[in-house]
Amino acid sequence: MKNNPDLNKEFVPLYHQLKETIREEIDSGNWRPNDKIPSEHQFMEKYQVSRNTVQKAVDDLVHEGLIYRQQGRGTFVAQPKVEQSLTSFYIFSKVMKDKGLNPYDIILDIDEVTPKKSVAKQLQIDTEEKVIQLVRVRCANNEPLIFETTFLPKKIVPHLTKEDVEKNTLFTFMEQKYNISVVSSKEVFEPVLIRDYESKHLDVKPGMPGLLLDRVDYDLDKRPVSYLRSIVRGDRCRFYTELIK
Amino acid sequence: MKNNPDLNKEFVPLYHQLKETIREEIDSGNWRPNDKIPSEHQFMEKYQVSRNTVQKAVDDLVHEGLIYRQQGRGTFVAQPKVEQSLTSFYIFSKVMKDKGLNPYDIILDIDEVTPKKSVAKQLQIDTEEKVIQLVRVRCANNEPLIFETTFLPKKIVPHLTKEDVEKNTLFTFMEQKYNISVVSSKEVFEPVLIRDYESKHLDVKPGMPGLLLDRVDYDLDKRPVSYLRSIVRGDRCRFYTELIK
Repeated sequence: MKNNPDLNKEFVPLYHQLKETIREEIDSGNWRPNDKIPSEHQFMEKYQVSRNTVQKAVDDLVHEGLIYRQQGRGTFVAQPKVEQSLTSFYIFSKVMKDKGLNPYDIILDIDEVTPKKSVAKQLQIDTEEKVIQLVRVRCANNEPLIFETTFLPKKIVPHLTKEDVEKNTLFTFMEQKYNISVVSSKEVFEPVLIRDYESKHLDVKPGMPGLLLDRVDYDLDKRPVSYLRSIVRGDRCRFYTELIK
Repeated sequence: MKNNPDLNKEFVPLYHQLKETIREEIDSGNWRPNDKIPSEHQFMEKYQVSRNTVQKAVDDLVHEGLIYRQQGRGTFVAQPKVEQSLTSFYIFSKVMKDKGLNPYDIILDIDEVTPKKSVAKQLQIDTEEKVIQLVRVRCANNEPLIFETTFLPKKIVPHLTKEDVEKNTLFTFMEQKYNISVVSSKEVFEPVLIRDYESKHLDVKPGMPGLLLDRVDYDLDKRPVSYLRSIVRGDRCRFYTELIK
């Protein structure tokens, strides 16, 4: 089948074609954010497909964050995703502010812990050295977007309180209190399924697509000063980059 | 609960703790690629957890591509993922070659089509103008990694055959035959669930995490010369970037 285009074409399933049709209406701007989309029945009649097919297509697009359901009211076009450029250094709260969104964090935990081997490796410290672990849900406009765990070597950031993190960005705090400037970062991205544990905090169903974002921040001496692991909601966020030859 | 760290800590589920323990062994290098990991029973006994808990943890990590199952043989540590930098312009086949992997494509379809609105929009053409649609499964070392659909405006690339694509990279072909040089691209990333239709070609189970990669390539005059939509296997690929302040 793989090498026979015509055969291959016959095999595009109906739900997939319906998905593309709906996506088309949204991408082209025919349907705008918060517009109500046709009901299951309307889709079934218009395209002569089964309820099952319509449900599969709609479920997919809900998962992808293009549309959302409202109990008893119907299905609607979602707000466009929050876009983050990867071409330059960025700070979550600043980016959100620049977009006119209102960023805030729910601080779940600040604690002093002994790092796991993998964390110690990223921070280039011994597993005996203590790290400060900061667990936050990063929100914008009353919507949780990122479940984030940050690790800071205690020898670099000896003391960090809830207030410190609430008052300032972590980087501003490090700069002002400990004279540490973060000048570069390395980020790694992988798509993952959002798990029960994270989904509770992100207010999504488990199994929704998310981005696992690993980030190490370095100071002027190329020394790792913080390491974070985030789960980013895939239905609300996307990333872009410009590549120049 | 969200604001009570201690409560929050009590609620880290067992399967999640087991996942982290296994991830730890792999990240720290204790367990190497293709090492066999302990059996369900060994995990159940060692950590005093239920079969259900072990299965949930192992299933998650299989989904994330850290480990893989072999019918009747057990569960093993997976090869590290293929890494792609986003800091500079790249071409799939070239990147794979540089990594010592052997890249090749399965060409599913080359056809002349009328573009959807969303495609025409990306290519900045009218929906009446024809485009050449190229559907490929991009593989490296006998492993399908990316399900890719490329759209080329016919007025820019009037003619494209299977042979053209097999002989050269698309960019080399465009350069040599039509004197078009792609000098920049914009890429957008979103995590998605891999669907039946794509999963067949990517040789993974539907519902595995994948990356939806949208890319527009521009020539010297900033004119869009190609647009592609890919589904990248999340269990085998990851992306990274360096951010300089």
